[in-house]
Amino acid sequence: MSAYTVEIRVMPRAALLDPQGQAVQHALQALGFGDVASVRAGKHLVLQVQAATREEAAAKARTMCDRLLANPVTEDYECNVSQ
Amino acid sequence: MSAYTVEIRVMPRAALLDPQGQAVQHALQALGFGDVASVRAGKHLVLQVQAATREEAAAKARTMCDRLLANPVTEDYECNVSQ
Repeated sequence: MSAYTVEIRVMPRAALLDPQGQAVQHALQALGFGDVASVRAGKHLVLQVQAATREEAAAKARTMCDRLLANPVTEDYECNVSQ
Repeated sequence: MSAYTVEIRVMPRAALLDPQGQAVQHALQALGFGDVASVRAGKHLVLQVQAATREEAAAKARTMCDRLLANPVTEDYECNVSQ
């Protein structure tokens, strides 16, 4: 078993409204950053996972996303595994 | 002026406790993922920014992080600009 670092990015689906991103965009515009055309806000998670291989670590990470970390209806996710 | 995509990752500083990450770790362990040794939870923001050059877009993004997007006491950030 080795320790792998898994970076997971969870973002709202492109087709859906993103109220958090819109709030950030409005706050930026109020501060004078009028040239920000859009903001999407998501989560970034960094996990230390014990696994036998890189593929096993990636498979575990995908299962964690499906079961807990991402909402399958409203969010997409991406996993990157490094050692 | 061109449109640039700026990806910003805001993470809690390594030296600080991360209660959100700990909550995620406990929830994962309760679901049977006992081989997760640590979790750090942060934000991922994707901005569309109008700027004359890539360097200007990066400078604007850093100013936005310093002024609004990241807490300078508790968080670190990283910006990546692409066209």
